Amino acid sequence: MTALEGRDVRPGITTGPITGSRKVHLEISDPSSARVLRVPQRRVELSDGTHVDLYDTSGPYTDPDVPIDPARELPPIRRDWIAERKPIGGAVTQVAYAKAGTITPEMRFAAAREGVDPELVREEIAAGRAVLPASRCHPESEPMVIGSRFLVKVNANIGNSAVTSSVAEEVEKMVWATRWGADTVMDLSTGRRIHETREWILRNSPVPIGTVPIYEALEKAGGDPAKLSWELYRDTVIEQAEQGVDYMTVHAGVLLRYVPLTARRVTGIVSRGGSIMAAWCLAHHRENFLYTHFAELCEILRSYDVTFSLGDGLRPGSIADANDEAQFAELRTLGELTAIARAHDVQVMIEGPGHVPMHKIEENVALARELCDGAPFYTLGPLATDVAPGYDHITSAIGAAQIAWHGTAMLCYVTPKEHLGLPDRDDVKTGVITYKLAAHAADLAKGHPRAQEWDDALSKARFEFRWQDQFHLALDPDTARGYHDQTLPAEPAKTAHFCSMCGPKFCSMRITQDVRKYAEENGLTTVEAIERGMRDKAAEFAEGGGRIHLPMAE
Amino acid sequence: MTALEGRDVRPGITTGPITGSRKVHLEISDPSSARVLRVPQRRVELSDGTHVDLYDTSGPYTDPDVPIDPARELPPIRRDWIAERKPIGGAVTQVAYAKAGTITPEMRFAAAREGVDPELVREEIAAGRAVLPASRCHPESEPMVIGSRFLVKVNANIGNSAVTSSVAEEVEKMVWATRWGADTVMDLSTGRRIHETREWILRNSPVPIGTVPIYEALEKAGGDPAKLSWELYRDTVIEQAEQGVDYMTVHAGVLLRYVPLTARRVTGIVSRGGSIMAAWCLAHHRENFLYTHFAELCEILRSYDVTFSLGDGLRPGSIADANDEAQFAELRTLGELTAIARAHDVQVMIEGPGHVPMHKIEENVALARELCDGAPFYTLGPLATDVAPGYDHITSAIGAAQIAWHGTAMLCYVTPKEHLGLPDRDDVKTGVITYKLAAHAADLAKGHPRAQEWDDALSKARFEFRWQDQFHLALDPDTARGYHDQTLPAEPAKTAHFCSMCGPKFCSMRITQDVRKYAEENGLTTVEAIERGMRDKAAEFAEGGGRIHLPMAE
Repeated sequence: MTALEGRDVRPGITTGPITGSRKVHLEISDPSSARVLRVPQRRVELSDGTHVDLYDTSGPYTDPDVPIDPARELPPIRRDWIAERKPIGGAVTQVAYAKAGTITPEMRFAAAREGVDPELVREEIAAGRAVLPASRCHPESEPMVIGSRFLVKVNANIGNSAVTSSVAEEVEKMVWATRWGADTVMDLSTGRRIHETREWILRNSPVPIGTVPIYEALEKAGGDPAKLSWELYRDTVIEQAEQGVDYMTVHAGVLLRYVPLTARRVTGIVSRGGSIMAAWCLAHHRENFLYTHFAELCEILRSYDVTFSLGDGLRPGSIADANDEAQFAELRTLGELTAIARAHDVQVMIEGPGHVPMHKIEENVALARELCDGAPFYTLGPLATDVAPGYDHITSAIGAAQIAWHGTAMLCYVTPKEHLGLPDRDDVKTGVITYKLAAHAADLAKGHPRAQEWDDALSKARFEFRWQDQFHLALDPDTARGYHDQTLPAEPAKTAHFCSMCGPKFCSMRITQDVRKYAEENGLTTVEAIERGMRDKAAEFAEGGGRIHLPMAE
Repeated sequence: MTALEGRDVRPGITTGPITGSRKVHLEISDPSSARVLRVPQRRVELSDGTHVDLYDTSGPYTDPDVPIDPARELPPIRRDWIAERKPIGGAVTQVAYAKAGTITPEMRFAAAREGVDPELVREEIAAGRAVLPASRCHPESEPMVIGSRFLVKVNANIGNSAVTSSVAEEVEKMVWATRWGADTVMDLSTGRRIHETREWILRNSPVPIGTVPIYEALEKAGGDPAKLSWELYRDTVIEQAEQGVDYMTVHAGVLLRYVPLTARRVTGIVSRGGSIMAAWCLAHHRENFLYTHFAELCEILRSYDVTFSLGDGLRPGSIADANDEAQFAELRTLGELTAIARAHDVQVMIEGPGHVPMHKIEENVALARELCDGAPFYTLGPLATDVAPGYDHITSAIGAAQIAWHGTAMLCYVTPKEHLGLPDRDDVKTGVITYKLAAHAADLAKGHPRAQEWDDALSKARFEFRWQDQFHLALDPDTARGYHDQTLPAEPAKTAHFCSMCGPKFCSMRITQDVRKYAEENGLTTVEAIERGMRDKAAEFAEGGGRIHLPMAE
């Protein structure tokens, strides 16, 4: 592929390993392709001689052995797998193979990343409870799986707008977002050069790329929703599918009869796609063409293995509007559409809110699961309050962690600029790290088998004053180290047996180490042993304490 | 009081109203003192002529009518109330008055801030389910109430250490923290000039001040826990109570027999107070003197109305150690101590963790409620994961919002520097704002009657493109405005009818406004009306749509 060569855009790209980590590859035999799959992991080597391997979304950019040139595509690791594969009844989708009992190389690769049995990946995809978004036209992507039985995933939105941003910046944002852990990236460009920006992003992306085709269709319609048509939209979808987009948000559930349900809301319709389709429906007094042409759309997506992300165009835009009639009416329709897509062997996930107070979060997951027959849920936050613009990465991480614990499979990040402006590079990093920690908190709460190892390794390093190990195990080693340096800049402090909060004279963690010695010497590490050992002491206390006013407990 | 005059410390203090707000006072008649109470509120006046009054913790610093001189104490608004009050059986505590059926001016003041019936405040304090920490020696503080029936409160820790920080910085941190919403402040100083620092903070603080007296006692013991004694501790408590400390953390539940339970933990004992007492117990092979002398301590605290904050010295320091034997053994003992304190008419709250994965959070609240008979729970976070040092204000806000929803009455903030260094002024602000949004998210989820008004006002302003109103209603107006300016710096953009994300050509919110017109014209704002109206349209769609592949829904 040479589409990028000779172009005038040469983005500056961040490369090299994350501080304290190095790229390793698991080598996995794949019987179906008779190949060895090289599955990337981020290895953190610790000063005690052990190591922790972490899920790695960063692609070849963090691998010093792979030369990076943004004007050439990444190594197309899936090219041969795709070429050799035979369609199943006309379908080339992962769900078609899964239903036929085939474990594809993509499934095996994704399973190895997660540390799970490949058969689990196949089963979940076959049942529609997981998706593996991997277009046959995006061979550069490293396969990953989205479903509630797997690690919670994070999507980062990027994209230029009519107001700001360049192609080069957007490519670097994609690389930057995946460096810090974005599992997928959505290109939401609405300004000029949409096609070209997307080409650059796709050819350089190691993660699945999502889009909202209606945005580009609207540009083609001169920005007037009323001028949209099925034909214009269809051609845009085909154009994007040819480029290799892995999943597409389609607002096919915004039905004409649901639109007036939003009239009494505090914040009406806040989804861009939802309001475009609402505007079209109102202008023509006709049903949403994405709904009426949905089966045709399924045929197109099936031939590329593009995954549906059924958009929630009527999602609430405020706490006041959460879980209302309009939102759940649309969700019911998304359930119908899910069944149709599945009948076409097209993969489907379901988008969710938005803005939801904590006590209404669980209902969203439960209802989506029921109405959409367990299709993976993909939510934007939700924000748990509206009163903190400038901090909406946090208000939404509070909601995101909870909704993921209850079963959401992928979280769309929110940056500090949400509701206020377009995120810059720092905002992208803050958004990704915030969502990675929310996703990981959910993995812990769900009891994902490998999740707690990471926390335990970091906590052990903290307790043993292995400062460097603590930094290297952090989601963001550079920020952790930087904060420590602000208080105790000297290099020896990195190995000091005290922490920067208490200083050298007194340290709670040091005292605790004495406890271990005591307990070992006295053989006291369970309540029973202690109560046995303490019984004799009780009388002594009662006499010797002098001022005991309390009955001795137990 | 002239203790501060002539001192060499003249802190620079932040004064003046928060952007877009002004101080107003509710005037409330208090029959018990025959006075009018002036209860502060922060009023946000909106461009549509309405206003929103918010809970105001910032004291006279945001009131341009009150001259500020940090070398003089704040106006002692409670001085006369305290002077005129008669003890009840030797007790001057709010709980003694509440049990006797008296609504004190403090209770009435706190109720007015919350917008609730004063009788509710009295009842909750009488039952031990709420505390009103207001020492008789801290007349400058504005009364507030902590309990699960009231707004969730936020504490900010400040304090110098052996390593860093000056008195002036700490006073400004206190003023700065209350400016952004800290409901109480704990002075955790461990370095030099502890007494002097505390005096400055108390005389200038409009909020209750908490301390951990064992820290100062340890300084007096030369930093060696083994040299501590009940007498040294008692004298320190009296010294601090005389200065006006409103609540004190007391680690009386760290019993000798519980200490070995921490030996097999990943992170042992991480509470400073807990490890000091554990070290003392081990060094002397005797029971914790705070436990054996607890009744004497009650007598002292009762005579000043200092509230107990029963410390969780064995709280978990990592996900791995959450909800373990050591933690819950101590909690049982805190339950016993609560009963003793109540019998002495001393107010009590219970401190909680720490580090807890989401699925173990609710158990903490339920068990604390049961074992400590509904005493207000006051938790540090908890962090929902350990893997994000540098972002622990966020990992802990995720836990804090949930634990507050389940009933925690006050949250101790965590700053981005947690585990890494001492917070500076920016970190204090970030920590406070993060915790205010978490507390507010819990107020929403608990259905506090006034909570959602704020969200609705901000959301409405957002939807109507009233940018200035949106900024002014934000928890942090300056940051919200600053982020908007980064994308669209021009002043006209503040009144533009489009947002900075989509630009002028297309805006989802503008489209939505058309929906309202449509719905009004067609009388369609409920599902029933729409279905009636749509029934006739259905046939038309079925014919005219041409390519309908779907059965018409409903």
